[in-house]
Amino acid sequence: MSRPAVVDSVAALRARIRDWRRDGLRVAMVPTMGALHEGHLSLIRIARERAERCVVSIFVNPTQFAPSEDLDKYPRQLARDLDMLATARADLAFTPTVDAMYPAGFATRISVGGPSAGLESDFRPTFFDGVATVVAKLFLQATPDYAVFGEKDYQQLCVVRQLCRDIDLPVEIIGAPTIRDAHGLAMSSRNAYLGEAELQIARQLNVVLRKTAAALAAGADQKDTIAEARRTLIAAGFHTVDYVEARESLTLGPWRHDRAGRILAAAWLGKTRLIDNVEVPTA
Amino acid sequence: MSRPAVVDSVAALRARIRDWRRDGLRVAMVPTMGALHEGHLSLIRIARERAERCVVSIFVNPTQFAPSEDLDKYPRQLARDLDMLATARADLAFTPTVDAMYPAGFATRISVGGPSAGLESDFRPTFFDGVATVVAKLFLQATPDYAVFGEKDYQQLCVVRQLCRDIDLPVEIIGAPTIRDAHGLAMSSRNAYLGEAELQIARQLNVVLRKTAAALAAGADQKDTIAEARRTLIAAGFHTVDYVEARESLTLGPWRHDRAGRILAAAWLGKTRLIDNVEVPTA
Repeated sequence: MSRPAVVDSVAALRARIRDWRRDGLRVAMVPTMGALHEGHLSLIRIARERAERCVVSIFVNPTQFAPSEDLDKYPRQLARDLDMLATARADLAFTPTVDAMYPAGFATRISVGGPSAGLESDFRPTFFDGVATVVAKLFLQATPDYAVFGEKDYQQLCVVRQLCRDIDLPVEIIGAPTIRDAHGLAMSSRNAYLGEAELQIARQLNVVLRKTAAALAAGADQKDTIAEARRTLIAAGFHTVDYVEARESLTLGPWRHDRAGRILAAAWLGKTRLIDNVEVPTA
Repeated sequence: MSRPAVVDSVAALRARIRDWRRDGLRVAMVPTMGALHEGHLSLIRIARERAERCVVSIFVNPTQFAPSEDLDKYPRQLARDLDMLATARADLAFTPTVDAMYPAGFATRISVGGPSAGLESDFRPTFFDGVATVVAKLFLQATPDYAVFGEKDYQQLCVVRQLCRDIDLPVEIIGAPTIRDAHGLAMSSRNAYLGEAELQIARQLNVVLRKTAAALAAGADQKDTIAEARRTLIAAGFHTVDYVEARESLTLGPWRHDRAGRILAAAWLGKTRLIDNVEVPTA
């Protein structure tokens, strides 16, 4: 397996994609921040089921990090990432520089309401503006037919869908199931920050969410069940729980027992913030 | 001359444009709010010099009106507009409904900084968000190669250019010279609100701006000259002057004598707000 071609300019990206289109090939995009793991590879495999060509962007987007967050220490490992892309048979890696994405004088912000309200936004108030703006740019640069996002970042997936619907971006968004380790821990580039003892605790996040979802599906009181989940996470060793909430699956509005639901959570282990979410099984 | 075809759905618009592209034809777009006049027709003629096909959107965009503004009384005259489009040989009119552009749940806002600062924004704080969002939508619906905007709305032209650059919309923006009546009054759909006595006063707006630009070009002090322009407009009969300012032509940043400049103004006659702008001639 050989590494994919790499382009770092929009002009080169568009030239490649124009060539593919001329040959009648469909294009799927997988936007990433690099530090690739099995979760990303699963997105690429899904992309390749939909389209003849797959472009993966690798760009650690500064506008979705707050000043207090881990932009500087976010793992960057391009050579290793390209080897991973080879195993998943991505066709092209797009690796723009920060200056190319946000040249001097850049001044535009895209704000998506609706599903961005609450949850992550309560703790990372500019995060989804950063995500929406960079995703719109990537889609306008690459003009993919499809784009694949992981359900691991479930609120992000909902925000990107809303973005495309609202501004008429003709990209079909595909949500991909979260890839987990044998103990249920969702794959995340930030797992690399965790020591062995923290990993043991981290694995409880999914366990608690699945129990919470099962209790709600069985008709348990929402407020009590969520409060219990929060207590259980703290007892397991998470030192702060940013949120545990049940939301309606599609709109992320308030959840009631008669609707498709999702339990979403974010919690801290040391300096590492983990997120996860699970479906509320329906009867 | 026959009226252009009319489509009111994005699907029908895209089908037409796909057919044109299949035939190798380039597409230019002229976004309007209807109530067409000679100024709009000049934009269409310029569009037709660049591209084989010209689509004109007619959409009175509610999100660029503040609650206090003239959305309800803004002139709507589709049949007359279509006759006008026939004379300018537009190929297609796109007339979406408000519900089609902003369906229930619509929740996205695009904010362009840079040239949107001050001037109109000091008096219409949400105006350019409304413009940027609808222009992005129209461009993503129609995917034109070119779009033509009048220099009459000079700040808007700068904001649209910044929008396209910032979010990588592959549309070339063409600025078109302001069309004026024999007395220098810039064509505007809002001129229809003016009585004969007000028209006489309105015509002084351009006279004063040209004198101001000439004085600045001759080296006059900027602050004194702008203050004098404001006094002259009030003396001519404008009851409120929202702004008169000299700005740098491309960025709309502060102007200095050694830079290409533009004088921009907005002033009220009764319930009608007029805007105009002129270049500062360079030596």
